[in-house]
Amino acid sequence: MIDYKVLKHLNINELHAVADEIRKEIIDACLKNGGHLASNLGVVELTVALYGCFDIEKDKIVFDVGHQCYTHKILTGRLNEFKNLRRSNGVSGFPKVSESVYDLFSTGHASTSLSLCSGLAKARELSGESYEIVAVIGDGSFLCGQTFEALCDISRRKDKVIIVLNDNGMTISSTGAELTSSDERLGKFFSSLGIEYLGSADGHDFSKLFDIFKKAKDNDGPVALRAVTEKGKGYAPSVKHPEKFHSVGVALRETYSSVFGKALTELAVKDDKIAAITAAMTGGVGLLDFSKNYPERFFDAGICEAHAVTFAAALAKSGYKPFVAIYSTFLQRAYDQLIVDVCLDERPVRLFVDHTGAVDYDGETHQGFYAYSYLLSMPNMTVAAPKSKTELKMLVEFAAKFDKPLAVCYPKYVEDTAEHVGKIAVGEWEYTPDSADITIFTTGARTYRLAVEAYELLRQKGIRAQVVNALFIKPIDVKAVKKAAEQGMVVTIEDGIENGGFGQSIIALYNKENLKGKLLTVSVEDPLQKQASIEEMENNLGLNAKSLAEKIIKAYEA
Amino acid sequence: MIDYKVLKHLNINELHAVADEIRKEIIDACLKNGGHLASNLGVVELTVALYGCFDIEKDKIVFDVGHQCYTHKILTGRLNEFKNLRRSNGVSGFPKVSESVYDLFSTGHASTSLSLCSGLAKARELSGESYEIVAVIGDGSFLCGQTFEALCDISRRKDKVIIVLNDNGMTISSTGAELTSSDERLGKFFSSLGIEYLGSADGHDFSKLFDIFKKAKDNDGPVALRAVTEKGKGYAPSVKHPEKFHSVGVALRETYSSVFGKALTELAVKDDKIAAITAAMTGGVGLLDFSKNYPERFFDAGICEAHAVTFAAALAKSGYKPFVAIYSTFLQRAYDQLIVDVCLDERPVRLFVDHTGAVDYDGETHQGFYAYSYLLSMPNMTVAAPKSKTELKMLVEFAAKFDKPLAVCYPKYVEDTAEHVGKIAVGEWEYTPDSADITIFTTGARTYRLAVEAYELLRQKGIRAQVVNALFIKPIDVKAVKKAAEQGMVVTIEDGIENGGFGQSIIALYNKENLKGKLLTVSVEDPLQKQASIEEMENNLGLNAKSLAEKIIKAYEA
Repeated sequence: MIDYKVLKHLNINELHAVADEIRKEIIDACLKNGGHLASNLGVVELTVALYGCFDIEKDKIVFDVGHQCYTHKILTGRLNEFKNLRRSNGVSGFPKVSESVYDLFSTGHASTSLSLCSGLAKARELSGESYEIVAVIGDGSFLCGQTFEALCDISRRKDKVIIVLNDNGMTISSTGAELTSSDERLGKFFSSLGIEYLGSADGHDFSKLFDIFKKAKDNDGPVALRAVTEKGKGYAPSVKHPEKFHSVGVALRETYSSVFGKALTELAVKDDKIAAITAAMTGGVGLLDFSKNYPERFFDAGICEAHAVTFAAALAKSGYKPFVAIYSTFLQRAYDQLIVDVCLDERPVRLFVDHTGAVDYDGETHQGFYAYSYLLSMPNMTVAAPKSKTELKMLVEFAAKFDKPLAVCYPKYVEDTAEHVGKIAVGEWEYTPDSADITIFTTGARTYRLAVEAYELLRQKGIRAQVVNALFIKPIDVKAVKKAAEQGMVVTIEDGIENGGFGQSIIALYNKENLKGKLLTVSVEDPLQKQASIEEMENNLGLNAKSLAEKIIKAYEA
Repeated sequence: MIDYKVLKHLNINELHAVADEIRKEIIDACLKNGGHLASNLGVVELTVALYGCFDIEKDKIVFDVGHQCYTHKILTGRLNEFKNLRRSNGVSGFPKVSESVYDLFSTGHASTSLSLCSGLAKARELSGESYEIVAVIGDGSFLCGQTFEALCDISRRKDKVIIVLNDNGMTISSTGAELTSSDERLGKFFSSLGIEYLGSADGHDFSKLFDIFKKAKDNDGPVALRAVTEKGKGYAPSVKHPEKFHSVGVALRETYSSVFGKALTELAVKDDKIAAITAAMTGGVGLLDFSKNYPERFFDAGICEAHAVTFAAALAKSGYKPFVAIYSTFLQRAYDQLIVDVCLDERPVRLFVDHTGAVDYDGETHQGFYAYSYLLSMPNMTVAAPKSKTELKMLVEFAAKFDKPLAVCYPKYVEDTAEHVGKIAVGEWEYTPDSADITIFTTGARTYRLAVEAYELLRQKGIRAQVVNALFIKPIDVKAVKKAAEQGMVVTIEDGIENGGFGQSIIALYNKENLKGKLLTVSVEDPLQKQASIEEMENNLGLNAKSLAEKIIKAYEA
């Protein structure tokens, strides 16, 4: 039986047998369902050792991000559900409070573990209790700003927190930083903060891990140690290509990331002012080729979205053309920097906001439902959402010439339907007045596809609709909205939250201009969507063609 | 003449004379207009030395935050305007691109200087140019996460950036961190990152500063040095009370900060689960007494809003009641942590969002106009805006019992008008249907006051209005809105941006429920308000009683 309770009674050989069994489960589940294969294979022994050494009935262990929580899940009673990893009927790929009392926090974004542990440590002190608090943090997350904020705080207050740095020498792609590369540097770093550093242990060697954990427990104050692990350990293809196998997918659907990356790489041949910036997601955002062809103009900021955005603002100030490609959910980390460093001075930073809308299988923390809301609220920001590959390519070219802050939002998977490529003009949509009963305005590829499918269902009911993509979500095409309102009912559909989104900006225009006629706005009613396929989530949200058509008909006939 | 051009020709005594003259200008301007007196007095010699040593016609100097840019402004041709520091007819208290080519970036939030400098350094490399790039950063900003993100990046790329750590041993209140307290620690810290550390110099000694700057210039890679300065130097009261004089105000108006702090301190007597958290603004948010009375339950996170929020989430998870008091503009730094660490798991973190709405004299970077927009967009978040001191006190008590994420927003100055204190009930406003022609819904103290003044003007025109504060901005009181819509025209007024704000949520309700009748939403049309008094800004924005009454009458009679 694979359960944390038995671990304390096993000898080293038996622990290795448990580790092998867990590793097999992880490989099986990931190859079946996709998942963070390489990062999780790296920490099997480390997690088994932690659970053999600490008492998780009272001690608290926090896994940073959660890219490495699979062994933890298997050991805490979720082996059966683990077979359906990342599926709606299985476990989440990240720690999740609703799944288990041993998942202390629902996480998914990097570098919060030390802040959480310092909070737990203060609570322990205030309540006069006694137990260990352990953060397990990868070397990528470790170099993200919030870690440093928490370290300074822990340093100041001398809270007993055990920091386990899981060093596999890479973030999702590669850290490249020297800090975590040697005990000498790490020793100096922690010492400068008044935190004891115990050195390194082989993260796959149980005796060495037990020894160093014991030392950490014996220490009175904050203490750090490094577990050197091999990313992808135990599965040959992922050891060889750890970035590729950091996260494995199940289906090979074409992504807009690759469309973006290809277009930018082509454009960079002709325009040597173009620079590309990513935050530890070179492959994820489609920039691998760019990074190889133009290494001097490619910048991986690490898991540091705030820094990436401010850095880009300075490049823009210096006459370069920074293209910043970050997933919608992670760009949230730079909300303030976007307002202050980009928008205030109208720096022409080009944001390519990948994974806007529903994101499959990663769950609540990775959904891209806030992008329109936060981007539309920013002064001087222009926001676009292409409906097709061709339009995305055209927007890359447009962005190179546009000299103001610009955000281009697109979902994960290519969703191209029939192409109607017009010109790319700020504040103008491809709208031509006709005698349709209903005009449906969409926000990019996914919603456009849904609307086109709904259009067909409406047509079968004898209702004539037209579908128009709001290529520029901000500024909106006021003329088009007015004309559409004159001609009949207007529907907006967006793959984002209602508050501050596209639909609300259209309602506001109706109110301001005293437009008459029916207006239906469709948006994501509950952005906290758990792990599932995009289709499942859209069904849950009533965001499929059938539900959409029903909603429209109901409103139309009311 | 005080100008950077002459500095290179002056001897040490003459430089001291210039410094004395500048210091006098700073003291005069701050005592007249308010301003960041102590932080600026600390860096007079440092800035003079920088401009004597570097060539700002080609070298780039970036002041972090800008709390210490007054000498820079005086030296770069703005002596006359400086007399009207922070006034609408004078200079901003922060670096501002529109004021001078020597203000490279408009700043105001901490710890962006190294990100900006690393961007400048890449641009220098790409363009093959040659000049020095210098960041001047205080020890408070230095401990903020984005600094570390940029340091890791600079470390990785070996960019030649000169980091001048201005160490006055305090952030706005006190860093308390040991890292910046000694050359030994700093030496280790920078060495761990592969950045050369040159040691310290007396930040008021020109020869020592020149020597160390010369060493920094001679270095090939990234290099750091510490200038030890005395905060408030040259003005006895501010040396004695540097926190008090960090920023001096001109008028002594009562603030909601002190109302909040007093209420929380009183409540903490009876409830030992209450904890208070601030981000380097103990005095600013009214928590000085709390910090003295309950040091074990008081946490100053440093200028680390993200860490503060996540830390609070862990305290909440552990059964404590964290009250996080942060200004609206700085809470933007924790946008993502609020969504992921607080809202996803519905942690009862109590946010007290000070300086919501217009903030006087600090300009664009400090306005609190985004709070409603970003808070309303967060799932599971309840948002309140009291209209009076009594209601703020009641909300502090309510918050202690409320077990979900809660944000209470209030402006800087007490704006109490006549009190009508009802009960505090989520989703219920103090609305009683009457036969008024117009119902004006407000968002807290300042807008309530304006609406009451407008009410009087409307009354004089024979129009009967009633004014109702939307105590809970989220969830809204649907019944009240419906009833008010039935009875006549509805007006909303908010001291925040339109997008995603209160007004849009009311318009959305009108559309959803098919409510009839006129609806006028008044919000902040341009959030980029430069330094001015609140009254001046409100006049610019048409947010005074007269304009409001005119707008209402126009819409009413249309």
